Amino acid sequence: MNLDAVLNRIDADLQRSTDRLFELLRIPSISTDPEYAVQCGTAANWLVDNLKSFGVEAEKRQTQGHPMVVGHIDGNGPHLLFYGHYDVQPVDPLNLWDRDPFLPEIQDTNKGKVIRGRGSSDDKGQLMTFVEACRAWKTEHGVLPCRITFFFEGEEESGSPSLVPFMKNNAKELKADLALICDTGMFESRVPTIVTMLRGLLGEELTITGPDIDLHSGMYGGIAINPIRVLTKILAKLHDHNGKVTIPNFYNSVPELPTNIRQQWQSLAFNHQKFLGDVGLSVPAGEQDHTPLETIWSRPTCEINGIWGGYIGDGFKTVLPSKAHAKVSFRLIGDQDPHEIRRNFRAMVEAALPEDCSVTFKEHGASKASITETSSPAFEAARNALTEEWGVSGTYSGCGGSIPIAGHFQNILQTTPMLIGFGKDDDKIHSPNEKYDLTSFHKGIRSWARILHALT
Amino acid sequence: MNLDAVLNRIDADLQRSTDRLFELLRIPSISTDPEYAVQCGTAANWLVDNLKSFGVEAEKRQTQGHPMVVGHIDGNGPHLLFYGHYDVQPVDPLNLWDRDPFLPEIQDTNKGKVIRGRGSSDDKGQLMTFVEACRAWKTEHGVLPCRITFFFEGEEESGSPSLVPFMKNNAKELKADLALICDTGMFESRVPTIVTMLRGLLGEELTITGPDIDLHSGMYGGIAINPIRVLTKILAKLHDHNGKVTIPNFYNSVPELPTNIRQQWQSLAFNHQKFLGDVGLSVPAGEQDHTPLETIWSRPTCEINGIWGGYIGDGFKTVLPSKAHAKVSFRLIGDQDPHEIRRNFRAMVEAALPEDCSVTFKEHGASKASITETSSPAFEAARNALTEEWGVSGTYSGCGGSIPIAGHFQNILQTTPMLIGFGKDDDKIHSPNEKYDLTSFHKGIRSWARILHALT
Repeated sequence: MNLDAVLNRIDADLQRSTDRLFELLRIPSISTDPEYAVQCGTAANWLVDNLKSFGVEAEKRQTQGHPMVVGHIDGNGPHLLFYGHYDVQPVDPLNLWDRDPFLPEIQDTNKGKVIRGRGSSDDKGQLMTFVEACRAWKTEHGVLPCRITFFFEGEEESGSPSLVPFMKNNAKELKADLALICDTGMFESRVPTIVTMLRGLLGEELTITGPDIDLHSGMYGGIAINPIRVLTKILAKLHDHNGKVTIPNFYNSVPELPTNIRQQWQSLAFNHQKFLGDVGLSVPAGEQDHTPLETIWSRPTCEINGIWGGYIGDGFKTVLPSKAHAKVSFRLIGDQDPHEIRRNFRAMVEAALPEDCSVTFKEHGASKASITETSSPAFEAARNALTEEWGVSGTYSGCGGSIPIAGHFQNILQTTPMLIGFGKDDDKIHSPNEKYDLTSFHKGIRSWARILHALT
Repeated sequence: MNLDAVLNRIDADLQRSTDRLFELLRIPSISTDPEYAVQCGTAANWLVDNLKSFGVEAEKRQTQGHPMVVGHIDGNGPHLLFYGHYDVQPVDPLNLWDRDPFLPEIQDTNKGKVIRGRGSSDDKGQLMTFVEACRAWKTEHGVLPCRITFFFEGEEESGSPSLVPFMKNNAKELKADLALICDTGMFESRVPTIVTMLRGLLGEELTITGPDIDLHSGMYGGIAINPIRVLTKILAKLHDHNGKVTIPNFYNSVPELPTNIRQQWQSLAFNHQKFLGDVGLSVPAGEQDHTPLETIWSRPTCEINGIWGGYIGDGFKTVLPSKAHAKVSFRLIGDQDPHEIRRNFRAMVEAALPEDCSVTFKEHGASKASITETSSPAFEAARNALTEEWGVSGTYSGCGGSIPIAGHFQNILQTTPMLIGFGKDDDKIHSPNEKYDLTSFHKGIRSWARILHALT
């Protein structure tokens, strides 16, 4: 079927495509906050209606958490599955946004037009690039060039608790020849990229309790144990002075990077000064015996993502709190076992507790790292399609982030995942003022049309 | 004038006294939170009206912050000034209160009747013990036994920024023969106590900034500096493994306790197991080379009163925040200079900052420690009056808390302060479910009547 006709239709329909994306962006589907559960359902319903409107048999599927959306449309050719997530990150601190995060708009910036709003890049905008490509194809040719299954979840930003059970229970329906995933970015915001290495993710929350109740530091200061002090001492020991994580056996299953991959990455000439300079930094933190790109793509990390305890309002309160809390996450590499690291982390914290203190832990997800096998010709076909659209040679890359679903497709469905996305480094995903370049959206839709053409 | 008649009237009027206190407790006069500024003014107005209702010439005096209340009533005999504060601590975390903090009630507990509510002990209940004693005396005898000045402030819980300027500008009006202060407790909740040693207080807030914006730990984790990690490393170094504060020169001006005072305190046989056990602890934290009572009354401390940064809501967010914050306070002893300690603390933090991080500081008050001269016969007279009321021999003591006004009376007004209060260790001041024993309130009123009698 004719590709150019589809590309022309995509160009002509860009305004309508953007309007549809804005409808989805206006739904505050924050999955991690129970207050927004209804809105997550609303986003799922919107997607079902959107898919149906161009002939996809779509429905919302209930889970223990937020619903899945599954849709099927027939076609001659291979069976492709497309995955995206309709949930978004929380928006605090709200005062750092220059507008309502859920009232998106097109803004002119010195780097071109951007779509501003929560989820514009992660992942509603990316998800809609594929949906809009399919709509254009269907509209132009009446049929799609292959059989396609749409699979959207609403818990990606909160650890995907329902995902694995759902995939296992519906493996037959979801299994495909290839799983396309659009939740990644372009190398240095300019090179179209197929991600083939992903870090795993482990989330832990800990609460340290000292006295039964909040105390007055005038009366008890100096004699009663302060759980904030205990927490800072424990967290301060998670890294040594070389930036290495100190949890026992942490690096046991971390492979050194193969020489050929290291050379390929070196040829990318990663500009870490610019990468850091864009966010006001100059010096790579962390492990000093690896290059910055290796640190992001192939080394495990431990980060404190949140900490709180005592009085944190305006003014001052000389309280000696009963409890202090932190959220800690680990990015994992190679065969690092998240469950073993969880156990070792907890044992290390417990061993460091002084008398009269106790600790409780809360799990926030656990996934291993994943590496994709790229020998299938579909990968070179897709890479060439990306090269044609962007005028820059497409590349395979690692990725610092964690997209557990990539491993699930391999392990549960025996379906090879292919991760392609059009996000840029300055998209501020998970931060105030998230945006998605209008070019990412437009050329993203065109890229998928080209890839559909190349794979069929 | 007849004391017994006054004591009988106090007993007969207890219900009405309690009703009046409840009116004051219902006003949420949280001084540290700008949202409650109006309520602070309401509490001041209430006090003016209350004093006027038994013949005191009282008025509200504006300041840059919350207003002062000053009242005068004539009488033959010495000129006594009475100080208390009408502002209260914040009430968070609200969910740990068993009722609305500003809807006080009398509750039956296994330790007797208590007045439950924010400010019941600190300091509205204590303040009203003196006011009610004066009211009873005036009602019974038509006059008071001496000249009395009432002086109430509304910024005690937020560093008293207006106090010193106000005292300096009104020194002639406020200077008295003796300044009575009711904002302290009873030793081991049973021994009536005149506090003669108070620790000073220094408050600091620090904000550490790393990247310009919040980052995604998948993309930047490992390579971008995390200000929470920096903050925990800095705070963890504030104490060594013996519980000593590590700020340079911190202990330079801290005197060792004189032998006679140490012996007097040893004779009190402080039961630190019970003191700690009441709040779920067993082992004295802090400096290990001083007794627990010395630690509280005569040793300086450094405490982290609040810490926050990153994502602290429900669920998980893999953010690498731009900023991390802490509130730190110091209790001071002897001649420790709060301004010098502030400088040394800031220099230590700045020296510990890694590349790409910056720090800003915010002041939250600074006061030196104070020691009262007790050679005037008024002290023994007051101590004997307390012994008569409570049937337990009154004592002089130190106090871990900081009541800067004691030093101000000495330094600005050349008026000796006398600190007497009826708080108990389990009053939960500054915590959820604050209470004041009904006995503290009732016998507190009676104690002041006896003291007025003894001093005139």
